[in-house]
Amino acid sequence: MAPRIPVTLLGATGVVGQRFVARLAEHPLFELRHLCASPRNAGTAYAEACTWRVPAPAADRAYAGLGACTLAAPDPRTAAAPVVFSALDSGPAREIEPLFARAGALVFSNAAAFRMAPDVPLIIPEVNPDHLALVGVQRSARAWEGAILCNPNCTTTVLALALAPLHETFGVEAVCATSMQALSGAGHPGVSGLDALGNVLPHIQGEEQKLESETQKLLGRLDTERIEPADFCVSAHCNRVPVIDGHTLSVSVRLAAGPSPGAVREVLEAWRPQAARMGLPSAPPVPLCVHAGTDRPQVALDVGRDRGMSVHVGRIRACPVLGVKFTCLGHNTERGAAGGSLLVAELARARGLLSERP
Amino acid sequence: MAPRIPVTLLGATGVVGQRFVARLAEHPLFELRHLCASPRNAGTAYAEACTWRVPAPAADRAYAGLGACTLAAPDPRTAAAPVVFSALDSGPAREIEPLFARAGALVFSNAAAFRMAPDVPLIIPEVNPDHLALVGVQRSARAWEGAILCNPNCTTTVLALALAPLHETFGVEAVCATSMQALSGAGHPGVSGLDALGNVLPHIQGEEQKLESETQKLLGRLDTERIEPADFCVSAHCNRVPVIDGHTLSVSVRLAAGPSPGAVREVLEAWRPQAARMGLPSAPPVPLCVHAGTDRPQVALDVGRDRGMSVHVGRIRACPVLGVKFTCLGHNTERGAAGGSLLVAELARARGLLSERP
Amino acid sequence: MAPRIPVTLLGATGVVGQRFVARLAEHPLFELRHLCASPRNAGTAYAEACTWRVPAPAADRAYAGLGACTLAAPDPRTAAAPVVFSALDSGPAREIEPLFARAGALVFSNAAAFRMAPDVPLIIPEVNPDHLALVGVQRSARAWEGAILCNPNCTTTVLALALAPLHETFGVEAVCATSMQALSGAGHPGVSGLDALGNVLPHIQGEEQKLESETQKLLGRLDTERIEPADFCVSAHCNRVPVIDGHTLSVSVRLAAGPSPGAVREVLEAWRPQAARMGLPSAPPVPLCVHAGTDRPQVALDVGRDRGMSVHVGRIRACPVLGVKFTCLGHNTERGAAGGSLLVAELARARGLLSERP
Amino acid sequence: MAPRIPVTLLGATGVVGQRFVARLAEHPLFELRHLCASPRNAGTAYAEACTWRVPAPAADRAYAGLGACTLAAPDPRTAAAPVVFSALDSGPAREIEPLFARAGALVFSNAAAFRMAPDVPLIIPEVNPDHLALVGVQRSARAWEGAILCNPNCTTTVLALALAPLHETFGVEAVCATSMQALSGAGHPGVSGLDALGNVLPHIQGEEQKLESETQKLLGRLDTERIEPADFCVSAHCNRVPVIDGHTLSVSVRLAAGPSPGAVREVLEAWRPQAARMGLPSAPPVPLCVHAGTDRPQVALDVGRDRGMSVHVGRIRACPVLGVKFTCLGHNTERGAAGGSLLVAELARARGLLSERP
Repeated sequence: MAPRIPVTLLGATGVVGQRFVARLAEHPLFELRHLCASPRNAGTAYAEACTWRVPAPAADRAYAGLGACTLAAPDPRTAAAPVVFSALDSGPAREIEPLFARAGALVFSNAAAFRMAPDVPLIIPEVNPDHLALVGVQRSARAWEGAILCNPNCTTTVLALALAPLHETFGVEAVCATSMQALSGAGHPGVSGLDALGNVLPHIQGEEQKLESETQKLLGRLDTERIEPADFCVSAHCNRVPVIDGHTLSVSVRLAAGPSPGAVREVLEAWRPQAARMGLPSAPPVPLCVHAGTDRPQVALDVGRDRGMSVHVGRIRACPVLGVKFTCLGHNTERGAAGGSLLVAELARARGLLSERP
Repeated sequence: MAPRIPVTLLGATGVVGQRFVARLAEHPLFELRHLCASPRNAGTAYAEACTWRVPAPAADRAYAGLGACTLAAPDPRTAAAPVVFSALDSGPAREIEPLFARAGALVFSNAAAFRMAPDVPLIIPEVNPDHLALVGVQRSARAWEGAILCNPNCTTTVLALALAPLHETFGVEAVCATSMQALSGAGHPGVSGLDALGNVLPHIQGEEQKLESETQKLLGRLDTERIEPADFCVSAHCNRVPVIDGHTLSVSVRLAAGPSPGAVREVLEAWRPQAARMGLPSAPPVPLCVHAGTDRPQVALDVGRDRGMSVHVGRIRACPVLGVKFTCLGHNTERGAAGGSLLVAELARARGLLSERP
Repeated sequence: MAPRIPVTLLGATGVVGQRFVARLAEHPLFELRHLCASPRNAGTAYAEACTWRVPAPAADRAYAGLGACTLAAPDPRTAAAPVVFSALDSGPAREIEPLFARAGALVFSNAAAFRMAPDVPLIIPEVNPDHLALVGVQRSARAWEGAILCNPNCTTTVLALALAPLHETFGVEAVCATSMQALSGAGHPGVSGLDALGNVLPHIQGEEQKLESETQKLLGRLDTERIEPADFCVSAHCNRVPVIDGHTLSVSVRLAAGPSPGAVREVLEAWRPQAARMGLPSAPPVPLCVHAGTDRPQVALDVGRDRGMSVHVGRIRACPVLGVKFTCLGHNTERGAAGGSLLVAELARARGLLSERP
Repeated sequence: MAPRIPVTLLGATGVVGQRFVARLAEHPLFELRHLCASPRNAGTAYAEACTWRVPAPAADRAYAGLGACTLAAPDPRTAAAPVVFSALDSGPAREIEPLFARAGALVFSNAAAFRMAPDVPLIIPEVNPDHLALVGVQRSARAWEGAILCNPNCTTTVLALALAPLHETFGVEAVCATSMQALSGAGHPGVSGLDALGNVLPHIQGEEQKLESETQKLLGRLDTERIEPADFCVSAHCNRVPVIDGHTLSVSVRLAAGPSPGAVREVLEAWRPQAARMGLPSAPPVPLCVHAGTDRPQVALDVGRDRGMSVHVGRIRACPVLGVKFTCLGHNTERGAAGGSLLVAELARARGLLSERP
């Protein structure tokens, strides 16, 4: 059995950082070597610095094993590893991630900071694995030995996975998507309980813009050294609802080929993209779980399947305005964050990006 | 001061029936004479038969005064009154409401049973008061002395109030609406707490169809003896979220005139339909409350304004797919049910429909 | 009609401050003159500095009227008034409240800072109005022209109102109380939505100690110049539950006279303390509302009665361990905070404390 | 490897029945042979008859495997098995469980129907395994080949596990316990979402009486052919709070030996009853998980540990009224229902009760 690849985690104490910790504690390929947090927490024990919010049982083993670990400062000189996962907010990410990339690491980032940079790949392994080619562009352009590789915003991840087979088969022309997003998407403490309970918050700062632009990049076409964004429009309404984990979206879509809801359903059910057949440890066997029940998918029942890595689609039916509509659902801090980022790293490794480094 | 008009209430014990009771306890024009419930409850005290769910303070006076009242059977021979309000479910409504209408009463109904019948007016006073003319058609067609007058489904009410000034000014061509609906819309017990808490239910039986067809009838044109439905399409996604009272909708709309978001906002703010200027006791002074804050409207803050009779609009902005988008919100058991029905009765009275009866 | 007494409000932007603003906007005796917030917010408009969390309709008039007011710094030289209400946290209260008291104002404080000081009256008007006598002691001791008068912690207020008639009639010997407290008790943002939703938090910093000691002071006996605390023990378990407003307590109590539950019920129902008969504007006609239904009191139904100023008691029954047990409930930011403080001020005015000042 | 013992499940479609199905789908000793529901559902597929409420991932495998199974009528002639698990309500349980016991099955029952019968063992394996001796008494008294064995009410299970080591070591003299119980304890649909959300329901029918009497039986002493109930009093306040799974209790206790909180903590931490060392498949390695953090245990973080089979204790401290107080927490439909019942069956098998049958 090959030795596991050492890993540094940036932003280890937040809600997404904790999900990374829980997943990495049992990962067959990666071994958590450095837990980094903001410099003021460096030197303190992980368990003291973080308010643990991952429920048992996922939490138990990880937390027991790592609670006593000492947090490091996010500095590539003292916390070096060939692979870096970043759960940083965009502000710190903009400063810190390039330091690690310049020092030679592949930085798998959840932050929005570099997602839309032309030379940074924005990847969902099942959707656009070929965009990994931007790593070479980026290295040339920035003269880095390492690179930054991003996974999309949590809501975008759910939407793009549901749209990918439709775009491939029928051609997406327009999308109207209304999200009902979980509280964990805002981190901890994030949304005040007073604002959250029994309420709908009709606005999430910056979210609609991300959903609109990242989807176009993800479903765009690689044109040698750049991504030609998909030329359909996405209109997003992003709402926060009193749910802990799991973003639900009501989606209407116009497809060039004008297929029936039945044809849409068949394509979604049959989708087995290459990345689902590569044996990547975090990949669910079937990325899209299509539900038949009229009251599914539901956060309360479905979001935990395949350790939060499946995306769920249901209620596929005709839309009198755009042609087809459906509901989709995914786990925002697993598939939409930590698990999604790990999956990109697993793909990068399978494609040889981890061994080809000098 | 004129004597108040005696009133019979059908379906007095349900969630909507209780809202009627609370409003009628203090109404200047109507006097609650008969509280009817299902025959098996006839003869028992109101307080015993119903699980009161209207919070203090609205509840206090009504409940104290009426708790000891004896429930009557829903029979026009023993519970006659010139005005009847119906909070019945559609099944019983289909049987019972015609009995009262035939016996000479004006029946103001919340039920879906007759809403789409061609000779039954479906009314929001600020939106389509002229549709009252169908009362004459109905009486001729059915040889009834009374008549049935409906208010729309709770979700439709909110959407139609927001669309009415836009349709009048700019011409609505297509609407994509995603609702996040409150639990009280399903009555009591309605949705199980296990299904509701921390969850999004992506389906509400029959709701999308109602939202699509009732909106067209409401914004349709009276053509002598019939309503020509508005010829735009509505696509509805209806979801249930963990909120007690208040339906929120994310709406995208295509308008023939292609106005800017600013022009849409001005029209919504300036809208003062005739019914808002007639002094109807339940009418809010301004039917649409347009919010400037990016995080408004919110159920938790706004739904109780004007005793639940205002509809709230906010986040008016450009939609890359349909042109304009916004969020709207209204109180489903007040404006969307009991208050809405009372307002129709107040309009009917102001238009002389109550005095012209033989 | 007498002119209203000018009032300064400290801590105007918080959850309790907002409740003060809503109540003072319509108060017959007091007129809000200065809205103070932390110095960094001085000079900005009230609406900008505060995240308004008081729901409509209570909020509407106040907020419309005061949103544009400019916030003042909490300085008695520039924001002087004969009456000051303080919604400050304990830290700032310890610094700022004495400045106003020294400058001659009667400071009615919600903060914990001075509640247990021997020369500071801790008052619930219906419970211990005679403790007002400490004002004279305080002025002598501190050489202040004004004084600080406290109302108790929100949870203590609910418990002490329920215990007061029992202690008077039967003699309280021991109390076991478990609270299920609302989120608003922690202010805004206060408890994270992630921690609150679908959860019970079994600890509230400092709360149990307050409930145990403040209850003894409130039900203590005035002995010329000091309060002899009541000599019974209170054992408190304080929990946070996902409720917006309203603290519920499960209480077991041992009474010296060993009365039956029926006798306890009669005493609670019959209680009409002097302060309830003085016409104080914020006083509910009956301070304790005793419920007969086995499923009452309930936050969702009862907490809003009398604008949140009643305390509710129900499920009075035998306790096999301590003798009698019951459930009680009160509105934590109204009776337990802003409304409670206003009521103390109304009592002080009725007792001549406001006019006797030099 | 020994063949698995065939099992019949009564009440398979309810919330507890579903937990049994999920656990039995992967059980090493028992094999689900007959899924029984009410006679009107006999013959329909399991997936059609039940509204599945067990979240993924626990649900996935079980549901996929069993959804197509046909439901049987609860009749021992057609659905016979040596082991029967019952998730029936008390009414049906009173009729149906004896039919199976008479026919020779060991019936492991969650219902309240027979728990307090003098010849029926009420068992928590870690607490009172010796009470199994009542099986012989029951068989003689009732001339049954089989027998009924009960596990306690869900709330009682949590309390009794926390009290057991204290009673053994220090002698319990009195207990005041306030529960904050999850919605799933009332089944599905159970509590209406309208009653549950943002509310505390201060009463649960029959619950307080069960908590008071079952605890005494569980901690009672086996005296040859009968149980001498423990002679301490339990006073229960049972409340429903908006939580999905997990009952939290605030407990004050008087102990004869008057130990310090530290001594209590040590005893709870050190407790390793025999049943925890027997290798029973559903037994957690340590039945009581003692938490050090002042804000633990929490439903949201802790209830899922060891697949819901641990009971959690925290905040152990002095109680000024009874001596010691703490918070405890357990999973009501796992440890408190399906898992608890399975554990009794595993104990019975380990003690030879399953093989000694004729």
